[in-house]
Amino acid sequence: MTDHEEGIPERVEKHRKTVARTIRDYVRDRDGRLHEMIRYHLGFEAADGSGELKGKAIRSSLALFTADALGGDPEEVLPAAVSLELIHNFSLVHDDIQDDAGKRRGRASVQKKWGPDQAINAGDGLKDLSTLALIEIGNGTSPEKNLTALDALGNYSLRMIQGQVGDLYYAEREEADVDGYLEMIENKTCALLEAPFHLGAIYSGLEDAGRLISFGKLLGYVYQIRDDWLGIWGEPEKSGKSVDSDLVEKKMSFPVVYAVQNGEGRPLERLQELYFQNDVLGDSEVEEVRLALEEIGARRATNSWAEEYWQEARKELKKTDLAKWAKSDLEDFGTFLLNRKK
Amino acid sequence: MTDHEEGIPERVEKHRKTVARTIRDYVRDRDGRLHEMIRYHLGFEAADGSGELKGKAIRSSLALFTADALGGDPEEVLPAAVSLELIHNFSLVHDDIQDDAGKRRGRASVQKKWGPDQAINAGDGLKDLSTLALIEIGNGTSPEKNLTALDALGNYSLRMIQGQVGDLYYAEREEADVDGYLEMIENKTCALLEAPFHLGAIYSGLEDAGRLISFGKLLGYVYQIRDDWLGIWGEPEKSGKSVDSDLVEKKMSFPVVYAVQNGEGRPLERLQELYFQNDVLGDSEVEEVRLALEEIGARRATNSWAEEYWQEARKELKKTDLAKWAKSDLEDFGTFLLNRKK
Repeated sequence: MTDHEEGIPERVEKHRKTVARTIRDYVRDRDGRLHEMIRYHLGFEAADGSGELKGKAIRSSLALFTADALGGDPEEVLPAAVSLELIHNFSLVHDDIQDDAGKRRGRASVQKKWGPDQAINAGDGLKDLSTLALIEIGNGTSPEKNLTALDALGNYSLRMIQGQVGDLYYAEREEADVDGYLEMIENKTCALLEAPFHLGAIYSGLEDAGRLISFGKLLGYVYQIRDDWLGIWGEPEKSGKSVDSDLVEKKMSFPVVYAVQNGEGRPLERLQELYFQNDVLGDSEVEEVRLALEEIGARRATNSWAEEYWQEARKELKKTDLAKWAKSDLEDFGTFLLNRKK
Repeated sequence: MTDHEEGIPERVEKHRKTVARTIRDYVRDRDGRLHEMIRYHLGFEAADGSGELKGKAIRSSLALFTADALGGDPEEVLPAAVSLELIHNFSLVHDDIQDDAGKRRGRASVQKKWGPDQAINAGDGLKDLSTLALIEIGNGTSPEKNLTALDALGNYSLRMIQGQVGDLYYAEREEADVDGYLEMIENKTCALLEAPFHLGAIYSGLEDAGRLISFGKLLGYVYQIRDDWLGIWGEPEKSGKSVDSDLVEKKMSFPVVYAVQNGEGRPLERLQELYFQNDVLGDSEVEEVRLALEEIGARRATNSWAEEYWQEARKELKKTDLAKWAKSDLEDFGTFLLNRKK
């Protein structure tokens, strides 16, 4: 099931197309500059509102996949899956303001194109659309299920925002430790990866979604730690982000946090000098930081921490109520996340 | 019914207390920096989460009042009213970033206290709480009504954000006309003043809320035009905003737009020189702008436009389905809005 070019299982990728089409139609015929910004961010900036949804749409595709794998109807979870995808996108638009990121998915970010003040509005608008989509797209299911899903999504989003607060706070501190980092991404990243499994359960009528949610959380760690690896050792033309942006912006990503806590001697000193004392890093300094991280062993450690979370996730996956084919697909999917190049 | 110190009818003010208590309890026992910022903004920054809700809570109080006046149960509309109040507050937190406003309600704004990036998070968190409050506070009413209310609120919020987009876009233009201004505030301000009447109708079972919503929209114009008047001729110690902030920040408020369109000769030239060519206005320049506006007649015109909208609103009010006592209270309330000092 992984002979797809990106390594995402076909049964997940198939749902991505449904989500993309539904989002496109939902944001299409709306007038005004707010919706113009929103469509641009999503990838539907053509004059007639057509285009390709940007991003992997992992979260929403997994929600549909999960409903299917629990014997539910993917169509029923679709509006909630769209809602989740729009929440993720609202967070990206605001995150780019906070990171002063000029690029997103290979082109100018909304905040670069329209300025940070208008980007605040674009994110806010996406947030409203995320709630409205769940209510308005309509899935013929019970209002009770929709309210349960809205409640769950609101709480996941709130956790994600708490993670953002922690991330910004964290970025200002010189001390860093792996525990603090993990706590922060448990909110910032894991919340929206627990959500698809929870939504799949809600609409399929599975009452105890504990193990599925726990699997989603572990996938979240894998996802973020790999993301941090790519931010330093990935190929920028694949990630669609600016070259070396994580190091230029001196993010407290996993490799850096690990190195600060575990490094010693000259490499650690050099890392601290460059990372915590200079204002902006130049090209040769970025290269020096990267070398220091490698000397400390942070590159290898980042890989093995991601691998370890994935092994934990696999154990949890085995104990879930999912159909056998679904477990096999999710094995492939996790392997893809662990090794992805973008 | 208007012998209350602030001029707000007692039956509206009474509901404000219920809203304030409900919001306080809803945001109280939440850990972490995000909720600390949110409680600060709302006025509940004491260590135990107590305090007085900041702001007049007009929108939420009117929602309870309307339910009452239509023979409904104010308790049923309470969660939705709280939701509306939190939407209004989320918009203020983000608006202060966009305006670079240092003060809000007499003290440091969230963006001043924690910086704009964290203020983005605080507003985002308030937005999630606005949805969650409606679902979680619980009112024993039908899920259908709650979904209808969430849908209405989402669309009002989206319109308000469209208004914000227009406002920022407008602020960059030299040409200004009253029609464009009115179109912008129809979204920016009127939307959240239509909402309370719509919510009251939803929970009271009134099917055609057209006239009530139209009354709310007209009140919105009265509110905003008076607000703009206060921003130039009000007493800063009452408004809780920085001295002369509207002129210092060169906002395209009603008096300025009116003056640009209707002024002539030396006063208009001076206004345009100062407002559209200097970067920041000093004290004496602010005073000059104020005088130019007065010479053009913008002060008087602003008053009479607000008065005219209020007379239109009164006509609409007479035709609504509200109880007689409610119409009388709303007459007083509108008169209060028209003449308020803060």
